[in-house]
Amino acid sequence: MLRTLIAAGSLATLTVAAHGQQEFEIPAETRATAQALAETARESDLAYEITESLSTEIGPRLAGTDAEARARDWGVEMLTELGFENVRVEEFPLDLWTRGDGVFETAEIVSPYPQPLYATSLGGGAATPQGGLEAEIAFFDSFDAFLESDDSEDALDGRIVFINDRMVATRTGEGYGWANRKRRDAWHLAEDRGAAGVLIRSVGTDSHRFPHTGMMSFPDGRRPQIPALAVSAPDADQIERIVASGETPVVHIHTRAGWRGEVTSGNVIGEIPGRENPEEIVVIGGHLDSWDLGTGALDDGAGVGITMAAAKLIGDLPEHPRRTIRVVLFGAEEVGLVGARAYARARAEDGTLENHVIGSESDFGAREVWKFSSNVGPDAVPAMDAIGRELAHLGVIRGDNESGGGPDMIPLQYMGVPMARLEQNGEDYFHFHHTPDDTFDKIDPDEMAQNVAAWAAFTYLAAELEVDYRAGREADVASQ
Amino acid sequence: MLRTLIAAGSLATLTVAAHGQQEFEIPAETRATAQALAETARESDLAYEITESLSTEIGPRLAGTDAEARARDWGVEMLTELGFENVRVEEFPLDLWTRGDGVFETAEIVSPYPQPLYATSLGGGAATPQGGLEAEIAFFDSFDAFLESDDSEDALDGRIVFINDRMVATRTGEGYGWANRKRRDAWHLAEDRGAAGVLIRSVGTDSHRFPHTGMMSFPDGRRPQIPALAVSAPDADQIERIVASGETPVVHIHTRAGWRGEVTSGNVIGEIPGRENPEEIVVIGGHLDSWDLGTGALDDGAGVGITMAAAKLIGDLPEHPRRTIRVVLFGAEEVGLVGARAYARARAEDGTLENHVIGSESDFGAREVWKFSSNVGPDAVPAMDAIGRELAHLGVIRGDNESGGGPDMIPLQYMGVPMARLEQNGEDYFHFHHTPDDTFDKIDPDEMAQNVAAWAAFTYLAAELEVDYRAGREADVASQ
Repeated sequence: MLRTLIAAGSLATLTVAAHGQQEFEIPAETRATAQALAETARESDLAYEITESLSTEIGPRLAGTDAEARARDWGVEMLTELGFENVRVEEFPLDLWTRGDGVFETAEIVSPYPQPLYATSLGGGAATPQGGLEAEIAFFDSFDAFLESDDSEDALDGRIVFINDRMVATRTGEGYGWANRKRRDAWHLAEDRGAAGVLIRSVGTDSHRFPHTGMMSFPDGRRPQIPALAVSAPDADQIERIVASGETPVVHIHTRAGWRGEVTSGNVIGEIPGRENPEEIVVIGGHLDSWDLGTGALDDGAGVGITMAAAKLIGDLPEHPRRTIRVVLFGAEEVGLVGARAYARARAEDGTLENHVIGSESDFGAREVWKFSSNVGPDAVPAMDAIGRELAHLGVIRGDNESGGGPDMIPLQYMGVPMARLEQNGEDYFHFHHTPDDTFDKIDPDEMAQNVAAWAAFTYLAAELEVDYRAGREADVASQ
Repeated sequence: MLRTLIAAGSLATLTVAAHGQQEFEIPAETRATAQALAETARESDLAYEITESLSTEIGPRLAGTDAEARARDWGVEMLTELGFENVRVEEFPLDLWTRGDGVFETAEIVSPYPQPLYATSLGGGAATPQGGLEAEIAFFDSFDAFLESDDSEDALDGRIVFINDRMVATRTGEGYGWANRKRRDAWHLAEDRGAAGVLIRSVGTDSHRFPHTGMMSFPDGRRPQIPALAVSAPDADQIERIVASGETPVVHIHTRAGWRGEVTSGNVIGEIPGRENPEEIVVIGGHLDSWDLGTGALDDGAGVGITMAAAKLIGDLPEHPRRTIRVVLFGAEEVGLVGARAYARARAEDGTLENHVIGSESDFGAREVWKFSSNVGPDAVPAMDAIGRELAHLGVIRGDNESGGGPDMIPLQYMGVPMARLEQNGEDYFHFHHTPDDTFDKIDPDEMAQNVAAWAAFTYLAAELEVDYRAGREADVASQ
């Protein structure tokens, strides 16, 4: 039930007809508070300092490692220091995969032109045999060419499948899913056809000598028996040139990557308790784990810093908003949204899932927010439109009502929690993504402050407005 | 004696007085040939293809290694294939330094915040003890601060000196010399004061996770007993942040770098014989060796490609220019201009030094040529000005007469050979310089073709004009 949908009587009938909705008005005082929050945020370095602290003092924090555990301690300490309440860790079990401690991965072209390659194992890949693996390349210019290739001739037996798909850089990052098919699924298709290994052109948009790592998919829980590595774009160019010259490259790869058994990971939680309906939760956050190659400043130190800072600024208001703002620093995102699934499962079990009125994650770097999208019940869209209007002064346009809420929100969204998304400019995000080059120097403090301004305004309004964000959905429980 | 200095009678007296020189006129037919050469060059992919071949088929080619020997074979084959005459290799001995075959260099912060560092040994540095070296950082924000630091307290004993000078990016690259002082000379000053090692912020202008290697200096032939490594800019930031927080970083470094004894290197030479005065030589070229981390596409595959292509296009003219054009692909440039010194010494010995009428090297990447400078006798400046005017249509301005001719021209210039320089835009050269990221994808074929156009026009004119480029020097031998 939508409690505060106020008809704006002055609207022309035509406008109402065109929208199929009436316009939602945010009370002037609430608007003023959101505006003031945004102004404060733009002058604040807090998100930048939080991200600096995480990337400097913890740095790489692969899911399930001691470094991720140190990051949880850091998260508890930081949330506490910033005045969050109900600060806690919710642990969950995790199957650990690592590259192999203190052990290097190598790759090189053996013939026709011996040269080192800059390569790294994809998450979940197997080790090479002792001494490494030397094999011919079976070259496919695209993942589709690989899918369409002839299955009948055992052409891949003992060879290393190389897939050369390129990724296009876009503001929205939508090139990622397409390019990522090879990273996720080449291994099992290649393994089934007798290949000895997989190499891919990195899923990335830069032309630097960094391989991009990232998790593979494991259909039905199946684990790779073959190694799978990514090479940097310039190294993929080299392989491509050799193939174009009519030669067949022979490469040697070596990795001790592998699965190490069950360990513990966890989500870190802190809250700004609500003034009137503390049991109702606006859930925001980022993920605490990172890949092991960089320092996880962009992915997702920035999201941790932005959402923590936004919530802290709201907590500093003379009066908290109506509902509780819960910041969740998810563990083990990179390795398959393990923390996000554990969080959603725990909420289903403790019966508080329905209390999650709306959710959103920041996990796309630190460039400016340019679009505000949502995924709420049809009757709540006018309220989202109204929130969108409050973000316009930050250079944010209103997107559609079909969005997700970020990777760690996927399980909650599946379970019916409404979502919003503050979309960032991602045109260079995949230059750095999952590489050694994901470091703090890549963050512009002004762009980051604009993020905090947008998040503070959105989060405050979402927590303050008396709107049921599920309203109008067919399966709406109408719990309010 | 300047044989073809033609007084331009129509010039106003004032102009002559202001210049202190009369204007030099290039014969119309010669100008037309130079112009046609430039037009042909701009449409040619030859330099791009040569550089592609060298970086693809040889790749990294550290001075004195088998890869550098393969590069010499490549050079002989390429020069021969392109129709050069008198193709030959002039060998010379070289003390080999390597990072250690198949062995990795590592560096990491041990405390207060354990994190890996991306680091690489500087050329000439020593190995760490077995198992590596762990020591406190003695932090200096600049090389000058290090020079000025108190010498009396044994403060460096057993510590690792860290020098944090930053380098500014400039079109001319002039920030390099200043920033490079720490790379060249920190080691012996630190060693004398009891330091256990040296780390520097890489001499470079990027903010990527690549360390920049490069040779150190060895005053009086002294060799380092301590390891010396560069870390990437983001890693230097990390050390700086820890120091700024009041902590003293402890780092662990490991390298098996060292000197390996005497080996053979060599210069590769090919010629376009002169039509009338084949004994007179215009010497151009680049260097064949590269650092081991990248593929030496910019440093100096580009210079090899540009000068070889320019000379080849001149060789394709119906009539060769008056003088011989000699292309020299110098060996062992990166490790101390060893090939350049050997070449100059050999010319002094065989009595052909005076036959070198002018020289120039391309060794600053593949961005566009924007300035034409020279260092010739005062009476030859008008001829250089005239050549400069022939390059203006390529977007090239005329520089001064105080220039060098490129690193490998230094020994010849010391011995009195006149010089010219086609200065390239170097504003991003030190983003890639001496890193793994020096790869072929960084080259823009159009900018490279503009280089070849400028080089073809300059080289043709220098070889064709009846000018003594030493003319007017006090110690001028007036050999013409």
